[in-house]
Amino acid sequence: MASKIIVGVMGPGENATPDENDMAFDLGKAIAQHGWVVLTGGRGFGIMESAMKGAHDANGLTIGVLPNDNERNASDSADIKIMTGMGSARNMINVLSSHIVVVIGMAAGTASEVALAIKANKKVILLHQDEITVRFFKNIGTYKVMIANTVEETIGMIKDYLAVHAAH
Amino acid sequence: MASKIIVGVMGPGENATPDENDMAFDLGKAIAQHGWVVLTGGRGFGIMESAMKGAHDANGLTIGVLPNDNERNASDSADIKIMTGMGSARNMINVLSSHIVVVIGMAAGTASEVALAIKANKKVILLHQDEITVRFFKNIGTYKVMIANTVEETIGMIKDYLAVHAAH
Amino acid sequence: MASKIIVGVMGPGENATPDENDMAFDLGKAIAQHGWVVLTGGRGFGIMESAMKGAHDANGLTIGVLPNDNERNASDSADIKIMTGMGSARNMINVLSSHIVVVIGMAAGTASEVALAIKANKKVILLHQDEITVRFFKNIGTYKVMIANTVEETIGMIKDYLAVHAAH
Amino acid sequence: MASKIIVGVMGPGENATPDENDMAFDLGKAIAQHGWVVLTGGRGFGIMESAMKGAHDANGLTIGVLPNDNERNASDSADIKIMTGMGSARNMINVLSSHIVVVIGMAAGTASEVALAIKANKKVILLHQDEITVRFFKNIGTYKVMIANTVEETIGMIKDYLAVHAAH
Repeated sequence: MASKIIVGVMGPGENATPDENDMAFDLGKAIAQHGWVVLTGGRGFGIMESAMKGAHDANGLTIGVLPNDNERNASDSADIKIMTGMGSARNMINVLSSHIVVVIGMAAGTASEVALAIKANKKVILLHQDEITVRFFKNIGTYKVMIANTVEETIGMIKDYLAVHAAH
Repeated sequence: MASKIIVGVMGPGENATPDENDMAFDLGKAIAQHGWVVLTGGRGFGIMESAMKGAHDANGLTIGVLPNDNERNASDSADIKIMTGMGSARNMINVLSSHIVVVIGMAAGTASEVALAIKANKKVILLHQDEITVRFFKNIGTYKVMIANTVEETIGMIKDYLAVHAAH
Repeated sequence: MASKIIVGVMGPGENATPDENDMAFDLGKAIAQHGWVVLTGGRGFGIMESAMKGAHDANGLTIGVLPNDNERNASDSADIKIMTGMGSARNMINVLSSHIVVVIGMAAGTASEVALAIKANKKVILLHQDEITVRFFKNIGTYKVMIANTVEETIGMIKDYLAVHAAH
Repeated sequence: MASKIIVGVMGPGENATPDENDMAFDLGKAIAQHGWVVLTGGRGFGIMESAMKGAHDANGLTIGVLPNDNERNASDSADIKIMTGMGSARNMINVLSSHIVVVIGMAAGTASEVALAIKANKKVILLHQDEITVRFFKNIGTYKVMIANTVEETIGMIKDYLAVHAAH
């Protein structure tokens, strides 16, 4: 084994749209096909669940960093469950533990993760986001925020980033 | 003594503009004049420092919830220093400990506080914010996000909120 | 106003004995009489509640750092309620925010606070503790752990410590 | 893949003795041989490093939950690095994320983990500990604290525990 590359996939739970969930599944699968680990907020809904199921479809490894202090509300799709008991303050851990963050869909928790990622000097890829969202985060994040419209484009950006920032 | 009403004042540190700092001073002073406590991120810059100095100008009490694990980078304007050692994850504590949150200026850390406040079902008053910021947070926060243009308007909103939600 | 000296008083909740609660009341009162702030875990039971009630008896200020994300289980004796939503991980914040820590009674949460205080290089005064407890914490904390048998002795140790470590 | 069983191995960093490190290596190896994941505090010293190296010797998976906000001080033996940026408050996450906790050696951080585990109703196995330590934690943890003298005994206790508490 060697230290693994972790890609954070962030997005809404219950309020994710079917299209967003499909995109998250495809993204999770593509991440796993490249040998990277999928990290999510670990709940069994929306972008989190879809990305982890996608990763499993390609035999990938998944990590869920949960807001809870026990496994009751954790997704079975999280191979490794990190129980924080910290509520949404765990969003910071999601961001810090990801080598790069991809965001599909938008909600309050997701927005906090984008903002915390920018604050922590992480690269964030906004995948298929609306114009207001893009303009807001570009205003506060400038070059740390990248814009992608497809899973392929996203994977390309991750590869480029890792080529420069991760020595493996 | 009795349990105190805490108003969170959030905003950028080093990058706050002079106008934003002036508004934060006036807001901090007005909060103190109403007998409420000013809570900030506790650092000696920008909105945090200005709001606490304003509170002191009216003999108010100030709390700083710091990202650090020791007092070295804390502002002397924080009467009570809560040392978290959690970095930006302390933003969640700022939000949870405030009965209502007011935001002046915008930066990554500030954006995370607005998003976490919405997620935690707190009311957030966006004071004198640009259109993109207002539209973004209205999209994710709907009725939890209120818009004000002056300190007087802000104080009125806080009073209305407390009249309904705080039993004194 | 000026930056306040905070003395943490830690100890069991529901399982504190009547004698321990009496001692916590006297300690909280003596702390307030010296102009220091009493910080506790903020719940309405045992050592926490008793120390805060003692502080109020001398018109002192009290801070409760709560494990919860809302005020429902907070003590009314906490003038300032810091809501962490982090469960027992908030014990670290209790310790970091206290200039010095006094411990009355013993339980699992209390033991974690003593250990975290030692780890964070804080001075801890074990007040009226049994021999096993004293020997265990002396083994891991050496000079950081002080032993007192009375409230008076404890106050003397706090004064000596502050004379050296706090410039006021 | 399926949800993995995580065994936490806690103990001192720099101050672990050679005998304690040897025992941690053997324990990590035995844990991996049973298909369980080794979770530690993730630093490249003492019990943490030894247990992860032991797990690797049997091709096991290792998780390090780090106090830092970046990988600079993380051990290369941690396959998955969870960066918390929370300092010793991360000890709570170590405990909550472990199905069962084993402790080798003793220091302040380690003691906080035992105490937090008891508080969180986790089972803790004290492996080869001195009498004072055993008596102290038995006093506050009663039946949640188990005593083992060898790695074999420890593995037996983990098996018994999982047979009852984990459905796999």
